[in-house]
Amino acid sequence: MDDLISFLRIPSISADPAYSTEVRRAAEFVRAWLDRAGLENAQLIDSPEAGAHPIVYADWTHAPGQPTLLLYGHYDVQPPDPLEEWISPPFEPTIRNGNLYARGAADDKGQLFILMESVAQTLRENRGHLPVNVKFLIEGEEESGGRHIDRFVTENAADLSADAAVICDTAMFAPEIPSITTGLRGIVYGEIHVEGAAHDLHSGDYGGVAPNALEATAQIIASLKSRDGKILISGIYDRVLPPSAAELEAWKRLPFDAEEFRRREVGSPALTGESDFDVLTRIWARPTLEVHGILGGYTGEGAKTVIPATATAKISLRLVPGQNPGEVASQLASAVAAACPAGVIAQFNLMHAAPPCLIDPENPFVKKAAQALEAAFGGSTAYIRCGGSIPIVGLFEQKLGIPSVLLGFGLPDDQIHAPNEKLLISNYLRGIACMIQYYELLRITPLVLPA
Amino acid sequence: MDDLISFLRIPSISADPAYSTEVRRAAEFVRAWLDRAGLENAQLIDSPEAGAHPIVYADWTHAPGQPTLLLYGHYDVQPPDPLEEWISPPFEPTIRNGNLYARGAADDKGQLFILMESVAQTLRENRGHLPVNVKFLIEGEEESGGRHIDRFVTENAADLSADAAVICDTAMFAPEIPSITTGLRGIVYGEIHVEGAAHDLHSGDYGGVAPNALEATAQIIASLKSRDGKILISGIYDRVLPPSAAELEAWKRLPFDAEEFRRREVGSPALTGESDFDVLTRIWARPTLEVHGILGGYTGEGAKTVIPATATAKISLRLVPGQNPGEVASQLASAVAAACPAGVIAQFNLMHAAPPCLIDPENPFVKKAAQALEAAFGGSTAYIRCGGSIPIVGLFEQKLGIPSVLLGFGLPDDQIHAPNEKLLISNYLRGIACMIQYYELLRITPLVLPA
Repeated sequence: MDDLISFLRIPSISADPAYSTEVRRAAEFVRAWLDRAGLENAQLIDSPEAGAHPIVYADWTHAPGQPTLLLYGHYDVQPPDPLEEWISPPFEPTIRNGNLYARGAADDKGQLFILMESVAQTLRENRGHLPVNVKFLIEGEEESGGRHIDRFVTENAADLSADAAVICDTAMFAPEIPSITTGLRGIVYGEIHVEGAAHDLHSGDYGGVAPNALEATAQIIASLKSRDGKILISGIYDRVLPPSAAELEAWKRLPFDAEEFRRREVGSPALTGESDFDVLTRIWARPTLEVHGILGGYTGEGAKTVIPATATAKISLRLVPGQNPGEVASQLASAVAAACPAGVIAQFNLMHAAPPCLIDPENPFVKKAAQALEAAFGGSTAYIRCGGSIPIVGLFEQKLGIPSVLLGFGLPDDQIHAPNEKLLISNYLRGIACMIQYYELLRITPLVLPA
Repeated sequence: MDDLISFLRIPSISADPAYSTEVRRAAEFVRAWLDRAGLENAQLIDSPEAGAHPIVYADWTHAPGQPTLLLYGHYDVQPPDPLEEWISPPFEPTIRNGNLYARGAADDKGQLFILMESVAQTLRENRGHLPVNVKFLIEGEEESGGRHIDRFVTENAADLSADAAVICDTAMFAPEIPSITTGLRGIVYGEIHVEGAAHDLHSGDYGGVAPNALEATAQIIASLKSRDGKILISGIYDRVLPPSAAELEAWKRLPFDAEEFRRREVGSPALTGESDFDVLTRIWARPTLEVHGILGGYTGEGAKTVIPATATAKISLRLVPGQNPGEVASQLASAVAAACPAGVIAQFNLMHAAPPCLIDPENPFVKKAAQALEAAFGGSTAYIRCGGSIPIVGLFEQKLGIPSVLLGFGLPDDQIHAPNEKLLISNYLRGIACMIQYYELLRITPLVLPA
């Protein structure tokens, strides 16, 4: 725990260039720690791009014939704002009620340390040996959307070859419910740009004849989704693969109360969306379209009577298995063009995309992870999905051809990306025990027997 | 002209507190100038409110039995941004091609000086006498929306009693077409505020079940106006008074080309709005609804996947004769509530309102103004309307019970509120000649004869 606490003290905020020295200090901390623990080839990998943060790599590959795990995590953290809402300062780790509070406690320094500590303990206990081969790949741009990892994995696919990736960057469904995430939504994110008049006009002089770019934007947005949550983009649902009957059945057994979820997590007068699907299915297995911001005109104090000549809306679609980001982006672009009112020109510009992912729960790396989880936590493993996107999973699948095992030891109330982020200390310890057990379960006994 | 140039050098930007000393300097300039010119009771009237700018008052009331004119103008100006687009600096008045370029040249320092100079010349030429009584009321908050003038007129209605107000703060319909404005649209301006979740949420974790305040705002806005420009607020057109057949006939005779207007003034692919009314009627005599800004979510660089919990849209309606601001505000509030989708609460908050105004062209003060215009400019006077709102006209009507004569000597391309504002010097000179003539035309001959 002392080393984790030292690690959490480093404000490795990757999105803020003012902290670049601290980000590098965190990378070097991880590298040196892995080196001392007995990992080999521990190194920082820099990107030639200005402002990029290094990747930490280290491996131990002396178990011939045994599986190789690519252990992924990130050492960077979200900005801690708003600072005044923290009970104890974000970079002064503090223990209260069995929880360790600090920025990065759950996302992802604490969970990364589960991987690091479990390998280190196994090496100590087995006199420098592991039951499996491991390659650590730890990045510093997860929270800032950097592309260093993409390029590195793409260009070094052969060196990174492995049988499965293990990612500890998700949460359990609920306390005491060991969980493996087997599905992620993808994303298509971009901007709708609308242009009307040559410049902003005065609504007294031109109101009634000049196009209003913000009104056109509102009309386009309103045309893309019905009030009951159906996306009105032609063809959007054509390739959607519904979850299996078994999966849906399993989700129904999860301890989940939609009304409590509404009250405690959302806080709105009502939940919205497709009423013919239950809440978990809507989040995990249905596409959604969301508007994130609308820029244009005047939004300061007081009243200005401008007719905005241009407007931009940030918009995204979350994709589910079966959907293809490229196809969805083009369907969205067509829908925007079709919905564009007279007097303006509207265009969708793609900013980034990630594919949805499905991980087969029958995959042996997943099944053994479930066994290890059950040994450490008791109970039976819940196979859940995540409504968010973890682009690295798609990258590993595409470039390395390997599945990812998404083993999360966080909890839904860990306040990641928010003030008072925490990690339950007992989960941290059980996570280490689970991983030690996992390496052992993955050992292919016949192959290590002497001939 | 020298005095006007000195006046234009003062950067009396009322909206920017950094210029409050300059605003006061402009007020004092006007007061001292009127005093020297032979006006009486020249004074600055301060408001107890912090940040308010003084009113300049001066009068000459020694023509018993003759009409009294309330001469209104404003000595403050709009901010000059963007500075880099000015050919000559905004506060260094420069003459090019017969125009005087400076911030305030047309709006309103130059036109105010027409009133000041015409009175001063008349006093000089008549050995300290005028054919009519005059009261100057010159404010410094016209461009910043200050309320000092409202309170002053309301509280001093008896002292300000007059037979008509004269306002030189509008433009001619086109060069060489002497114009009097006989109708103004009113305005109802406010904000639609939408609240959904208790706080912003992540679209991965909540997209598909949580309400999106920006989407709700877009849906509400899209429901308030059809794509062909009809306002869809119940009852909104009930009290609209159409222009008279004679007025419509006169507008048709004005030199106006809608295609040229689109190309040169608007610059959009097409004009929009109610296609069953021509362009001038749409601007002058039809209500319009415009959205001026939408605040909520994330509009910075890059991509954030926030589901906004709240959003605010600035919105206004322009009103035409017959419509009542209070009733329209309440119709809009009801329409917003009715259009509010599930999962959010939406509310309209009124910020300000001004009634529409109609001025009878048969009013003798208007008819004599037309005569004076025709004497100075030649041709026949066009009675036009203005799509904007001049709240002072409604104030004079309500509190003083007097009509306003809207005599404008600006031109449509004077670039008021924009870089390279100008005033045609020959219009300035003809404006002074017109006003001198006007005072003379208003003299009621029988009453000034000795008994």
